[in-house]
Amino acid sequence: MSTLFLRTLREDPAEAEVPSHKLLVRAGYIRRAAPGGYTWLPLGKRVLDKIAAVVHEEMAAIGAQEVHFPALLPRETYEASGRWAAYGNDIFRLKDRRGADYLLGPTHEELFTLLVKDLYSSYKDFPVILYQVQTKYRDEARPRAGLLRGREFLMKDAYSFDLSDEGLVESYTKHRNAYIRIFDRLGLEYTIVAAMSGAMGGSGSEEFLAAAAVGEDTYVGCTACDYAANTEAVTTPAPAVVEREWPELAAHDTPDTPTIDSLVDLANTEKLGGRADWTAADTLKNVVLKLTHPGGRTEVLIVGVPGDREVDLKRVDAAIHPATAALFEAADFAANPGLVRGYIGPQGLTAFRYLADPRVVAGTSWLTGANEEGRHAVNVVAGRDFTPDGTIEAAEVRAGDPCPRCGAQLTMRRGIEIGHIFQLGRRFADTFSLDALGPDSKPIRITMGSYGVGVSRLVAAIAEQHHDERGLAWPAAVAPADVHIVAAGKGDQIQAALALGEELAARGLDVIVDDRVGVSPGVKFTDAELIGVPTTIVVGRRLSEGVVELRHRTSDTREDVPLGDVSAKL
Amino acid sequence: MSTLFLRTLREDPAEAEVPSHKLLVRAGYIRRAAPGGYTWLPLGKRVLDKIAAVVHEEMAAIGAQEVHFPALLPRETYEASGRWAAYGNDIFRLKDRRGADYLLGPTHEELFTLLVKDLYSSYKDFPVILYQVQTKYRDEARPRAGLLRGREFLMKDAYSFDLSDEGLVESYTKHRNAYIRIFDRLGLEYTIVAAMSGAMGGSGSEEFLAAAAVGEDTYVGCTACDYAANTEAVTTPAPAVVEREWPELAAHDTPDTPTIDSLVDLANTEKLGGRADWTAADTLKNVVLKLTHPGGRTEVLIVGVPGDREVDLKRVDAAIHPATAALFEAADFAANPGLVRGYIGPQGLTAFRYLADPRVVAGTSWLTGANEEGRHAVNVVAGRDFTPDGTIEAAEVRAGDPCPRCGAQLTMRRGIEIGHIFQLGRRFADTFSLDALGPDSKPIRITMGSYGVGVSRLVAAIAEQHHDERGLAWPAAVAPADVHIVAAGKGDQIQAALALGEELAARGLDVIVDDRVGVSPGVKFTDAELIGVPTTIVVGRRLSEGVVELRHRTSDTREDVPLGDVSAKL
Repeated sequence: MSTLFLRTLREDPAEAEVPSHKLLVRAGYIRRAAPGGYTWLPLGKRVLDKIAAVVHEEMAAIGAQEVHFPALLPRETYEASGRWAAYGNDIFRLKDRRGADYLLGPTHEELFTLLVKDLYSSYKDFPVILYQVQTKYRDEARPRAGLLRGREFLMKDAYSFDLSDEGLVESYTKHRNAYIRIFDRLGLEYTIVAAMSGAMGGSGSEEFLAAAAVGEDTYVGCTACDYAANTEAVTTPAPAVVEREWPELAAHDTPDTPTIDSLVDLANTEKLGGRADWTAADTLKNVVLKLTHPGGRTEVLIVGVPGDREVDLKRVDAAIHPATAALFEAADFAANPGLVRGYIGPQGLTAFRYLADPRVVAGTSWLTGANEEGRHAVNVVAGRDFTPDGTIEAAEVRAGDPCPRCGAQLTMRRGIEIGHIFQLGRRFADTFSLDALGPDSKPIRITMGSYGVGVSRLVAAIAEQHHDERGLAWPAAVAPADVHIVAAGKGDQIQAALALGEELAARGLDVIVDDRVGVSPGVKFTDAELIGVPTTIVVGRRLSEGVVELRHRTSDTREDVPLGDVSAKL
Repeated sequence: MSTLFLRTLREDPAEAEVPSHKLLVRAGYIRRAAPGGYTWLPLGKRVLDKIAAVVHEEMAAIGAQEVHFPALLPRETYEASGRWAAYGNDIFRLKDRRGADYLLGPTHEELFTLLVKDLYSSYKDFPVILYQVQTKYRDEARPRAGLLRGREFLMKDAYSFDLSDEGLVESYTKHRNAYIRIFDRLGLEYTIVAAMSGAMGGSGSEEFLAAAAVGEDTYVGCTACDYAANTEAVTTPAPAVVEREWPELAAHDTPDTPTIDSLVDLANTEKLGGRADWTAADTLKNVVLKLTHPGGRTEVLIVGVPGDREVDLKRVDAAIHPATAALFEAADFAANPGLVRGYIGPQGLTAFRYLADPRVVAGTSWLTGANEEGRHAVNVVAGRDFTPDGTIEAAEVRAGDPCPRCGAQLTMRRGIEIGHIFQLGRRFADTFSLDALGPDSKPIRITMGSYGVGVSRLVAAIAEQHHDERGLAWPAAVAPADVHIVAAGKGDQIQAALALGEELAARGLDVIVDDRVGVSPGVKFTDAELIGVPTTIVVGRRLSEGVVELRHRTSDTREDVPLGDVSAKL
């Protein structure tokens, strides 16, 4: 500690909001160097290296082979896949001295695909799993929470290349099991959730989310079974409908009802349809969206959801990928006079694509817009008065919603995405014509999986789960040292602490010795607890009796141990 | 080999010019991904990792502590040091989504200085040595020779921070010794040469150059003593001059003498000054340069060198740093009518700064321009007819020049710069006011050293020194494997090869087993020699007698060894 490049801070840094960020800066693990860019100090670099070592070991265990691509990549390959345009502002772009376009790689699907095409050609070469641990770049609009969302970060990205769908499932399962071993070894609590594909395209996909109040990802878990999914992936069971004869559709004047609440109030006051028990769930809200397809083509999509729920645009985006959705604005309505803003109903909307929430099944009756200014209609019955073009998972998911697997109630949780496994399929193989020559000399289109671990983000995720009000409390597998020896006095005790440190280091332990002169024992203890090494050994007053104290950081327990037994004990 | 991600090539890749580039691509170590950007394949990544491990070990041995900075850095810090402008086209620059300026770090002096200022404040904190192994970026005008000059490459950069000049020398010496250990362990032949400071500013500096015909750095070595220096650093001893009375300066018409050769011919034909033994070395060539100082100010500088030597602009640049020099062009002469192009002499050139080669000592007499169109002068004597404003090391260095240390002849050599150690001094500490509070509470300005190793370039440098016409021949310390076992036949021999591989791996050796079915022994041997692992074990016909053959790649020797003795033997 007298020479370690470290300065601990008593105060939280002004820019830090989440516990991991505050503590990693205060304990001298990282330091901000740029917006969303951090410098690893010696303690932080060690934790990062230990995490990376675990990742390397488990990747090697499933036969993955390590490669390493440049981060500075020419535009052409990303142009071929369409992602040069699709990334928009989300990536860093630059030109070299000759004016050629480059990007800083946010992910390397294109390069891996081309590399395999370059080296491999026969069915005998497959399957193969390749990976790298590499610095990635994304021009985040709002870098935040320290290492949790940076613009320069360390990722492990792996890709599998298989001859068949069955092979892909096998490679996917290998990675799933490897990730379970990695995150278990790192001492993390996490949930594997079903995930939509996001911007990647493809089919089967799961995310590993570390439980954390500060997590950016919201996901649902079932209170009864082990179902878990991120909100984009949650499916809504269709309700059972009791068949009955509904009265005919009837339109009514409904002045001054700009909101669902005001509509429900009026409906109850006026006893529309002869009822006074209207709730928001009885209304059908029709939201007009403008879809933009890759390539720029736009389309109007109207989405119908029960009026007690908002439309969740993230769920819409996941459902309509690769198109993206935006809410209709005044100018859009002006250009589409057939759409009466605020009074849209699905009946007779033949000119537009209409997708309904899965709850809008045939036989359900709704209070909805009458497609006339200032008027709504009751007894608008699905399957009788209108037939949606299909269903869409557009409505927000809420705690208490039914589990799609067992029907029990769902709860909402927050987590940090630490891993993502993904059956990419043939998207990139199609783009670059990645084929293997089969035994019959016919080409076999390769199918791919992609598998990511946020290596630098894991430092923060582990810190979020392993800290208390006094500081960090690392799991042994990733702690920057195994033992932190505090010389609580001067002279003899410092010599004894250093000698003990040498002995333990000779036995293969990583050791920090607080040999500082002129620093009080109190400050040394505070620093030790802040840094969070699993075991602190206090060389103090009882040294003369040959006894030191062991303090266990996580369990917060202490024991006196004869000096001669320390090494064996550890 | 049946699963290793590898494809060896029989032909040299079209774009490769130097042996290391050809062989590293052919043997499946690297693959081009971008101009000056390479992908590391599994074999290459292993070699790179082994080199990095040696570097880490030797840095730890001198007490250096590892940190890691981002590569994507905001403009501001480089603006403060003046290097944002000074780098010109040599770095990659980019803007983020908000239009803020960034660069991809070519070197991190600024960041290290600010980090130490951020964490350390007392004299008790010093000295400290910090380093990182990091991907660096330079927008090379002509990336070439594979890994030897890329635009994205791996560097170890270390920085020392000391309270005194003596401390700096000590830190410098530690690094010098560490580098000797690193390059010795890596099996390199290299020379430590005195170096000028180049673009870095500062004083004491040495380069480690690996001997290689394809090296970009020319340096001189003495044939008698151990003097070595790069050409920028070579100093020219002043010749002893016999005092004598020279005749008066006399100008003569010298029509049609645009070159030194034509001037010498005419002087001999016309017997100028009564002599017919003129040589180019008797003439004084005066070259007009335009210096540009940092900040943009320009200045005319005239440099006088013996006419048998060219002006070496690299040596000029090193001598006038931080200014840069360019040759005068027609427009420059037009703007300076006092300078008669082709007929300039140092006599009466009072309006301009004039620096002379060290050979132009007082008492030497020269044939030079008469400052009149078509005329030259003889008996132009230094110290009598003109007095230079100083000397400059501007003339080219040639084989046979005298050694500045012992006077024996110098030879010219070529090398690859693999390391550079450099006493930076207080340049960056001054820029950022990096002080330590002394014991007397007065600030002490810190002095710095910077120390670089080209980690990825070392892969190529080692390959340049360790190969033959059949392929690579790695030193054991960096080979991608210790043993390459070739099953020369089918069935039994493949099983025996795999079993032997398991046994050797269990003993801690890195093993490649060529277990390919349907590949001839000849192809397997060719691949093994191309890949260049130190020892190949052939499991062949004599397996039935329990005997295998060991082939040593570097010595090209073979021996039969009983299967049971192989492990002990290795």
